[in-house]
Amino acid sequence: VKGDQKVRLPSAFERYRSEIDAELRSVLAERESPLYEMMRYHLGWVDEQGHPTQGSTGKRLRPTLLLLACEAVGGTWHQALPAATAVELVHNFSLIHDDIQDDDRERRHRPTVWSIWGKPQAINAGDSMHTLADVALFRLGDQGVALEKQQRAQRLLSEACLRIVEGQYLDISYESRPDIGVDDYLEMIEGKTAALIACSLEVGALLGSDDEAVIKGLFAFGRGLGLAFQVRDDVLGIWGDQKKTGKPLGSDIRRKKKSLPIVYALEKAKGEAKKELLNIYQKEVIEDQDLDAVQGILNALKAQAYTQGIAHKYLNGALEEIRGHPLVPSPARELEELARFLVERDF
Amino acid sequence: VKGDQKVRLPSAFERYRSEIDAELRSVLAERESPLYEMMRYHLGWVDEQGHPTQGSTGKRLRPTLLLLACEAVGGTWHQALPAATAVELVHNFSLIHDDIQDDDRERRHRPTVWSIWGKPQAINAGDSMHTLADVALFRLGDQGVALEKQQRAQRLLSEACLRIVEGQYLDISYESRPDIGVDDYLEMIEGKTAALIACSLEVGALLGSDDEAVIKGLFAFGRGLGLAFQVRDDVLGIWGDQKKTGKPLGSDIRRKKKSLPIVYALEKAKGEAKKELLNIYQKEVIEDQDLDAVQGILNALKAQAYTQGIAHKYLNGALEEIRGHPLVPSPARELEELARFLVERDF
Repeated sequence: VKGDQKVRLPSAFERYRSEIDAELRSVLAERESPLYEMMRYHLGWVDEQGHPTQGSTGKRLRPTLLLLACEAVGGTWHQALPAATAVELVHNFSLIHDDIQDDDRERRHRPTVWSIWGKPQAINAGDSMHTLADVALFRLGDQGVALEKQQRAQRLLSEACLRIVEGQYLDISYESRPDIGVDDYLEMIEGKTAALIACSLEVGALLGSDDEAVIKGLFAFGRGLGLAFQVRDDVLGIWGDQKKTGKPLGSDIRRKKKSLPIVYALEKAKGEAKKELLNIYQKEVIEDQDLDAVQGILNALKAQAYTQGIAHKYLNGALEEIRGHPLVPSPARELEELARFLVERDF
Repeated sequence: VKGDQKVRLPSAFERYRSEIDAELRSVLAERESPLYEMMRYHLGWVDEQGHPTQGSTGKRLRPTLLLLACEAVGGTWHQALPAATAVELVHNFSLIHDDIQDDDRERRHRPTVWSIWGKPQAINAGDSMHTLADVALFRLGDQGVALEKQQRAQRLLSEACLRIVEGQYLDISYESRPDIGVDDYLEMIEGKTAALIACSLEVGALLGSDDEAVIKGLFAFGRGLGLAFQVRDDVLGIWGDQKKTGKPLGSDIRRKKKSLPIVYALEKAKGEAKKELLNIYQKEVIEDQDLDAVQGILNALKAQAYTQGIAHKYLNGALEEIRGHPLVPSPARELEELARFLVERDF
C-alpha cells in the first residue's frame, strides 16, 4: 500500500482539472470541422464515434504546472487559464504528430488518431490543434492581461514550440545512429521535453508576477523538472508496468529509441555485451529475443539505478532553483510535491 | 508571342521579390537545426546537399499581394514585410504537409521534402515552419507597428490557418466521395486557398490604413481573387502544360481530386458518360486509359470553358470589391493587373 500511495496523483491536478478542461472545451467548441471531433477524441472526451466517454485524458501536467507557478508567485490562477490551455494544446498537437512519426497505434490504452482516421487527416488534426494554441492564448486579453505580457507569453510559447520540434527531429534521427552519447541525449530531451515544461512554469510566473528574478527561477526549475520527467519516462519506457503506462512492453527498445538507459549502456558496455548491443541496434527489426538480451545487458550494467539517479539529480537541481525566492508557501509546497511525484510515478 | 506576353509575371512580383526573400532568409538564419536546411531547400534557395541553387522558388504570390495591398491603401510596404514573410511561411508549411498527405514526389520540378528526408522529418519541417510564421510576425514590433495591430494581424493569420487546414481536410475527404457538388467544392476552396489570400490582402491593408471600409474591401477582393486563383489552378491541373506547371500530367485526375471540372462533369454528365465517370472514380487506381476517358468526357461537356468562365466570374466580382475605395492609383492598377494575370497564367 505504501508503494501505491507514494505515486498517487498530487492534489494540485485535481484542483485545476475541471477548469482546464472546461477552458479547452470552450476553445474547441466554437469550431465545426470534423477535425475538432478528432481533437476531442485525442483529448479523451469522446470515443471514435463522437460519444462522450470517460477515457483517459492524460494528466494535464503542463497546464497544472503553469497554474501552480502562477499561484506560487502570488498571482490569480484563473487569469492564467488561457495560457494553461495553450501549452496543453501545443503538447497534444505534438503527440498527434509524434504518433504518426513513430507509427504508434496506441496511446493511453486507446487507438491513436492516425490509426483511426489515417495519417493524412491526423496531420491535419495536429496542424489545426497547433494553431488553436495561438487562438487559446488570445483569450488572455479577456482576462485583463496587458498586451505586452500577452505577446511575451506568445513569444515564449513559440520558442518552446520550435525547441520541441527540433528535439523531435533529433529523437528520430538518433534511431538510426549507434553513436549517440549522453550529451547528444541531453540536447534532444532539452528540446523534446524540457522546453515546454520550462515554458509552462515561466509563463505561469510571468502572468502572476513582475519580479524577473522569480520568473527566471521558475523557468530554471521547470527546465530541471522537464529533464527529470523525461529521464523517469525513460525508466518507465523499459521497466514500467505496461498496464499502468499504457505503452506496449519494450516499445522504446523496439523503436530503437536512444533513451538514457540505452545510451548509458552503449557507453558502458564492454566486450561481448557491447558487440551484442550494437548488433541488435543495427538490425532492421528488433525481435522478442532481442528484447530479453537488451534487458539482460541493461540489468548487468545497473542501468535502471543509474537512470533513476540522474532523474533525482535533476529533481534536486530543480528544487534548488526555487529556494530563496519569495513564494506563497502552500502552492510552493505543492510544486515541490508535484516535482517529487514526477520522478517517482509509475504511470 | 502575344499569348506568351499575356501571361508574363506582373512587375510587382519583381519589385518586392528580393526583399521578401531577404526577410525570409533572416527569419531562418537565426536557427541551427537541420530542419532549417530542409526549409531552405523547400523555399528554393539550396539543393538537397545544402549548396546554393537557382531553383524555382515559387511566385511569392501571397506576400506580393500583401505588400501591394499595403501600398494601395497608402501605407509603407517595408513596414509590412514581417507579415509578408509570415503568410509565405504559412503557405509553405501547408505545402510541405500537403505533399506528404498527397504522396506527391515532385513540386516545382524538384523532389518534395518528404521524398528526400522521409515523412516523419518532413512533418517536423512543416511544424517548425508553421511556428516560424508566428516568429516572423513578431518582427512587426521592430517596424514600429502598434501592439494592437500586431495582435489583430496575428489573429487574422491564425484564423486563416485554421481555414486552410479545414479546407485541406475536406479536399482529402472528397477524394473518396463521388457525391461532391459545386457547393461542397466551394466550401473546400474557400478554406484551402481563398482564406490565406484574403488574409494577405486584409493584413496588408490593415498595416497600411486605419480605414475599416477599405480593409474590408481588400479582404473581399482577396477572397474573390483566391477563389478565381484556385479555379484557374484546377484548369491547369487538367489542361495545363506539364513543363510549365511542374505538376505531373493528369495528377489531379489520378489522385481523384474533386477539382471543379470534375465536380461539374459529375453533375452534368448523363447516361453512359456518367456511368463511366463514376466507375473510374470508384476504382482503387486510375490508369492511363482512364485519364483519356475522363479527358474525353470533360471535353464533350466543355468543362474547360465552364471552369475558366467561373474563374472570370470570381475575378470580376473581386475587382468590383475595390472599386469606389480611395486607393493609390499606381499600386491599385498593379493589383488589378496581378488579379488578371492570376486567371490567365499558364504556370
